[in-house]
Amino acid sequence: MTIDRKRIRWNGWGWADHEDHLSGNAAVWAWMADVLGLGGLMATPATPLEDIELPPLRLPAATLDALRAIAGADNVRIDDYERAFHARGRSYHDLLILRAGRIDAAPDAIIYPENEAQVVELLRFADEHALAVIPYGGGSSVVGGVNPATGPGQQGVLTLDMTLMNRIRAIDEVSLTATVEPGIYGPDLERQLQERGFTLGHYPQSFEFSTLGGWVAARGAGQQSNRYGKAEKWLVSARLATPAGTWTTEGFPASAAGPALGTLVPGSEGRLGVITEATVKLHRAPAVKDYRGYLFKDFDSGQAAVRALAQSDLPLAMVRLSDEDETRFFQAFSSLGAQKTIGTRIKSAIQSAVLSSKGLGKDFCLMLVGIEGEAEDVAYAAARSRAIIKAHGGFHVGRSPGRKWYEGRFNSPYARDPMMDHGLGVDTLETATRWSNIPTLYKAVRKALLDSMAAEATSPGARGIVMTHISHSYPDGASLYFTFVFPRDLGREVEQWQAIKNAASEAIAAHGGTISHHHGVGTDHAPWLGAEKGEHGMALLRTAAQTVDPKGVMNPGKLFGA
Amino acid sequence: MTIDRKRIRWNGWGWADHEDHLSGNAAVWAWMADVLGLGGLMATPATPLEDIELPPLRLPAATLDALRAIAGADNVRIDDYERAFHARGRSYHDLLILRAGRIDAAPDAIIYPENEAQVVELLRFADEHALAVIPYGGGSSVVGGVNPATGPGQQGVLTLDMTLMNRIRAIDEVSLTATVEPGIYGPDLERQLQERGFTLGHYPQSFEFSTLGGWVAARGAGQQSNRYGKAEKWLVSARLATPAGTWTTEGFPASAAGPALGTLVPGSEGRLGVITEATVKLHRAPAVKDYRGYLFKDFDSGQAAVRALAQSDLPLAMVRLSDEDETRFFQAFSSLGAQKTIGTRIKSAIQSAVLSSKGLGKDFCLMLVGIEGEAEDVAYAAARSRAIIKAHGGFHVGRSPGRKWYEGRFNSPYARDPMMDHGLGVDTLETATRWSNIPTLYKAVRKALLDSMAAEATSPGARGIVMTHISHSYPDGASLYFTFVFPRDLGREVEQWQAIKNAASEAIAAHGGTISHHHGVGTDHAPWLGAEKGEHGMALLRTAAQTVDPKGVMNPGKLFGA
Repeated sequence: MTIDRKRIRWNGWGWADHEDHLSGNAAVWAWMADVLGLGGLMATPATPLEDIELPPLRLPAATLDALRAIAGADNVRIDDYERAFHARGRSYHDLLILRAGRIDAAPDAIIYPENEAQVVELLRFADEHALAVIPYGGGSSVVGGVNPATGPGQQGVLTLDMTLMNRIRAIDEVSLTATVEPGIYGPDLERQLQERGFTLGHYPQSFEFSTLGGWVAARGAGQQSNRYGKAEKWLVSARLATPAGTWTTEGFPASAAGPALGTLVPGSEGRLGVITEATVKLHRAPAVKDYRGYLFKDFDSGQAAVRALAQSDLPLAMVRLSDEDETRFFQAFSSLGAQKTIGTRIKSAIQSAVLSSKGLGKDFCLMLVGIEGEAEDVAYAAARSRAIIKAHGGFHVGRSPGRKWYEGRFNSPYARDPMMDHGLGVDTLETATRWSNIPTLYKAVRKALLDSMAAEATSPGARGIVMTHISHSYPDGASLYFTFVFPRDLGREVEQWQAIKNAASEAIAAHGGTISHHHGVGTDHAPWLGAEKGEHGMALLRTAAQTVDPKGVMNPGKLFGA
Repeated sequence: MTIDRKRIRWNGWGWADHEDHLSGNAAVWAWMADVLGLGGLMATPATPLEDIELPPLRLPAATLDALRAIAGADNVRIDDYERAFHARGRSYHDLLILRAGRIDAAPDAIIYPENEAQVVELLRFADEHALAVIPYGGGSSVVGGVNPATGPGQQGVLTLDMTLMNRIRAIDEVSLTATVEPGIYGPDLERQLQERGFTLGHYPQSFEFSTLGGWVAARGAGQQSNRYGKAEKWLVSARLATPAGTWTTEGFPASAAGPALGTLVPGSEGRLGVITEATVKLHRAPAVKDYRGYLFKDFDSGQAAVRALAQSDLPLAMVRLSDEDETRFFQAFSSLGAQKTIGTRIKSAIQSAVLSSKGLGKDFCLMLVGIEGEAEDVAYAAARSRAIIKAHGGFHVGRSPGRKWYEGRFNSPYARDPMMDHGLGVDTLETATRWSNIPTLYKAVRKALLDSMAAEATSPGARGIVMTHISHSYPDGASLYFTFVFPRDLGREVEQWQAIKNAASEAIAAHGGTISHHHGVGTDHAPWLGAEKGEHGMALLRTAAQTVDPKGVMNPGKLFGA
């Protein structure tokens, strides 16, 4: 079961008919203007598709006929909606391009293969005819991972939309694994698994609009990755199609038979092959989910608690800690009735006097802890984690913040479109580093974002805001996730965004962070990959790609560039 | 602090002066002869080093002078003991060669570098002068991983003994990581870490005589890998020296910045570089260790319990299940007073009547469960695991079997030398597969071993025996470890061993097992690697090695062959 693409926004986030609590809420926009140091907000609507001229199609009729012969006439699309829909991912950068109607590159054909044999044939055809092939799942990339770039000498772009390959091929109930086609959307996958009593447990914020293949290719992480793991942890093995045929990675629970080549697939972003099948680890669907909120007087003490939990043996599903600014922003946003998301009105539920007796002043930090599993284990982990948190100065505020966050956990991205309609820019970026370096990296990236947004300010007194949280933690370190909002500099918005992005990326690279924790590399992060892989590492990546794809047909320009 | 090599056996296992409970125990040998269908055992002593002619040294004096200039005169060794000691690893196959005095290949020089700069210089020198370089840690390889092979056109072999590079360079107490040189032996590493309150927790059977670098290069597993992980799990990042300089793998707790190239290092067996530094994950030294024994009526019901434990959220350190034959063999071995190892006399401690009331007949299976960590967590996991085991028909027999196993956990390999003195062959091999395939693989490998040992029998009625256990378990599968003992066919012992090894390896490859779970590939498993990596996978491995080592200087012949 796939999604009718006409029901999803081609130039924004999610369902076209998703209920909008934000656009008409004047109080929110007045508050936003104030926070950003602006007299008022502008109206900056998106350009309708019918007003946009798409780049000309470059494929001769004979080529289109050949593609139709391989994949079936209905599965080869060249209409404007399909081309616009597949022209970009869904980053702020992408939406700037799409909403402005400046689509300077679009696929020349979108092909929906129905099986692996068709994928192999399409790759061979592309290899022979000097065409680029872009694998495309849900298209929710925020790093330029599906942009229709061409390599040297390539005369056209085929985007392979994998969403018709969406079957669960096998479930091994004894070994707790499932073998699944790549184009299955999150909700479809989880519905079928849960009907059988299982779960993959991979719930990224994009869950409703992203696919299994994309999660693997981009090395994604779900919100409950503490329990269920990032893609590289739950992927058992993958089959990949290349111009030279298919290959399958090792599928053992563990091995010492040489390096684990299967670990090259997560993060390969299409350059080592088109994923045609993935075998993944399942869990039994959890009997109990326990999500609670805690407050800390500051980000430092909250961090120490997250670290203590990550370094314990407790099987927690999620530990999420917002910094003071994010906690305050979400509270304000919520109190204005703007959004049914994390913004739970903590202060209204708890007496200010109580907060102050706990040493919490005006600013404090919200932590959410999620535990999933068997009732007995959840009860044990809940009690133990609460004790650890208390020992680190955390103050339990009950299940309500946890429940509210859980209910709205996929909704935040819907806030972006109305913001972009009001002359605002909003983007996110994420990194990870070892615990001992978290404070340094946090300060450096925040400063880079604030300074660059100030330098790019559109009027005297205008400023950006930065909100940060830790959402994924490990024994040796954690991720940092930054959301930043700023007044757009109309007319030079891509340059403005690039200046801010560059500043943040340079700060990450200079202070020991990875350029991405779960978004991937695509084109946006490619310039910084060399700094963390090194010269040998980049050579290894390039030769690996050349080995399976000598002509560079597969997703050119992504990951390590051309 | 390294080990005086003269105190270790050059042609056998472990300390030269290790107390020998076995050689003089006539009852054991009479029983062994009976079990193997032999009238009596032969005397087959090893050849002393002074009676052995080593292959001639191939390095001109100028080359030796150049090596001494790089590494220091004292650190370049060419004496017979050093050459014989480094001529082979410590597999049964190796000991056949060493004990027979048929050392047809030995290093032309053994060099003990003191730092990374020397390693790089030595690799450059080897690259320029067409010499092979064999990285060598403890030399406990059982797959031919340190054999002094040469590649095409190479005129000599330098073995780099890394044991002088044995310093802990840094401990990050906040992030729970340590950065360590590769040549440190297990006991030295753990002593220093535990003095600071930490542990790596990697305790392979070879722990006393193997090094950190070897554990990583061979993708090893410690006995408590359920909690502490195989090498690929605890390795954060590695530095490697190649003829083209050094490279460092990514050191982030998690990342989505392209494929994790660091995962290529575990299992690389020297072919992607000489490991000069490894950053590894630490745990806080466990406050409590709880090891207990359980009995099951058969291997199948025991397996179901291991699986239930592995698929639970309980943080167990070790779950080890012996099959009926291994349980019986260890009991008999122990009751004869032969060895202070696992052989605890279960029946003497527990009334036979009690056993039979639990449905345990003559044959049963011993399971050992180890839990390590904070007292509160261990108590919870002990109670929960006991309930799960009981629900699967397991019968708790207390801490004594666990304690005895723990005390003797590094001693089993000492039994091999006396067996080899008595005309017996003894070898081990291991594999892993998904849970649903464990019964099939177990039967197939057992049958291949029994059939091939029978086909290779030396006299009518002579036979081999096979003992099996599960020692490492995962949510999706487990390892199987086989020990087999058989009468040697004197004069054609290598051929006999190869025939048995081939039969077992073919059975593994044909029935969905990996050719190695934690021993590695070396030369012995190289012929079967292609079957599990596939054509593309082998090409990826080869091109990766060529990228960092175009002339094939580093450990030629290992892993993927020449």
